[in-house]
Amino acid sequence: MKRIMLVVSYDGTAYAGWQFQPGQPTIEGELNKALSGLTREDIHVVGASRTDAGVHAEGNVCIFDTESRIPAEKFCYALNTHLPEDIVVQNSEEVPNWFHPRKCRCIKTYEYKIWNADHVRPFNRKYTNFVYHDLDIDKMRAGAAYLVGEHDFTGYCSIHTTVPDHVRTILAADVIKEGDLITIRVTGNGFLYNMVRIIAGTLIQVGDGTKSPEDVKKALDACDRSLAGPTAPAMGLTLVRIDYPAKNRAEYDKDDIKE
Amino acid sequence: MKRIMLVVSYDGTAYAGWQFQPGQPTIEGELNKALSGLTREDIHVVGASRTDAGVHAEGNVCIFDTESRIPAEKFCYALNTHLPEDIVVQNSEEVPNWFHPRKCRCIKTYEYKIWNADHVRPFNRKYTNFVYHDLDIDKMRAGAAYLVGEHDFTGYCSIHTTVPDHVRTILAADVIKEGDLITIRVTGNGFLYNMVRIIAGTLIQVGDGTKSPEDVKKALDACDRSLAGPTAPAMGLTLVRIDYPAKNRAEYDKDDIKE
Repeated sequence: MKRIMLVVSYDGTAYAGWQFQPGQPTIEGELNKALSGLTREDIHVVGASRTDAGVHAEGNVCIFDTESRIPAEKFCYALNTHLPEDIVVQNSEEVPNWFHPRKCRCIKTYEYKIWNADHVRPFNRKYTNFVYHDLDIDKMRAGAAYLVGEHDFTGYCSIHTTVPDHVRTILAADVIKEGDLITIRVTGNGFLYNMVRIIAGTLIQVGDGTKSPEDVKKALDACDRSLAGPTAPAMGLTLVRIDYPAKNRAEYDKDDIKE
Repeated sequence: MKRIMLVVSYDGTAYAGWQFQPGQPTIEGELNKALSGLTREDIHVVGASRTDAGVHAEGNVCIFDTESRIPAEKFCYALNTHLPEDIVVQNSEEVPNWFHPRKCRCIKTYEYKIWNADHVRPFNRKYTNFVYHDLDIDKMRAGAAYLVGEHDFTGYCSIHTTVPDHVRTILAADVIKEGDLITIRVTGNGFLYNMVRIIAGTLIQVGDGTKSPEDVKKALDACDRSLAGPTAPAMGLTLVRIDYPAKNRAEYDKDDIKE
């Protein structure tokens, strides 16, 4: 029995999200089906991030256990021939059997992409949120800067969240402009439900003048969801990568991995 | 009566090309339908470039004549509400009634995009040609350099071409690498049938070692299509822009515009 980790990219447009739901197209469902077909085992992957309907990923992470004799690093090639064209496994490798993608400490990077022009661009219409109001990048950057550090992000999570602890650390929050494309890039040690999309919705309002950069801090300090902006549409959000910085089990054990 | 010029972007994936064909989805057909619906006139656009099935455009150009009282620069906004989401008009403006998008001298820029990695990237799978062999960019650049200038491009056009004169001038031919994305960018005063796709197919063979950079020159000098590489797939090709450098009718008249 070996444990294999996959790095999975997907265009989330056609899916009801990562998490398996009977009768719905999901990333997890497609991976389970392709892996079970390939290995002739009953495989259920465990994912790092249960992305929402319509959200994309450059590199979500999941694991599964198998008796298969396919070499771990060849799994991605074999698997991609069994997957639909909008899901592509970018890497596969063996990991220790204590490794768990959600219980092990990690750093996640998300990008929220905005196409800020007079007209939609057909090529990224499914991967960007189209905003035609002029956005002030300097103000968006000033607003984003208030989010960096350890904060209670109650003001920036869905009221439907079920997690009790809302304290998270954002390590970096950048606003990058390349031509008409604006990318909000956020890196942190964990994100609450809808957190990046609410950050994006708030920074768009800062950019178009509806809010001031200081309003970003006000919603944060007040822990008041109603002071932040709307939840920006899912199509603009991409989970870019997940890094597991600890190098061995002893380091992870400090984080109390539950096996 | 006024003449309006449109700059049209489209994802060509779902279309049988620019040119109207009864019973087939075409860019020209969709534009005629949307414009006729909007103006209540029977509009037939005249396009600058009849792109092939599956080829994309950032900025193809077309004109039409109308009695409509919609201001020329507002046409794009009105029109985009009538068009499918994979065709977006980026600009509309009035042009003199002698202006003709094919008969007036122009400079066209095409990009052929290659995703050169171990695995497909879901987000650009429809806009790039996936090549997993390592491509040598320096060799591709050396090969591309032979194409610049005025040449008889018989070796680089489809044997099905119907145009008698195969002399064209390529003003620039660059090979740009950004991460795993390789872009062949070609600018010229005119292109023969399949010319950019044959250039791309040849440069890919130079990149993977099947051909040498000097083989690019050999196919050119010999005017022999069989010495060039295969026609690369349509999905990688985008017509980026068309520029009309002359500023007035007198300048165009030198080019013998036929009205």
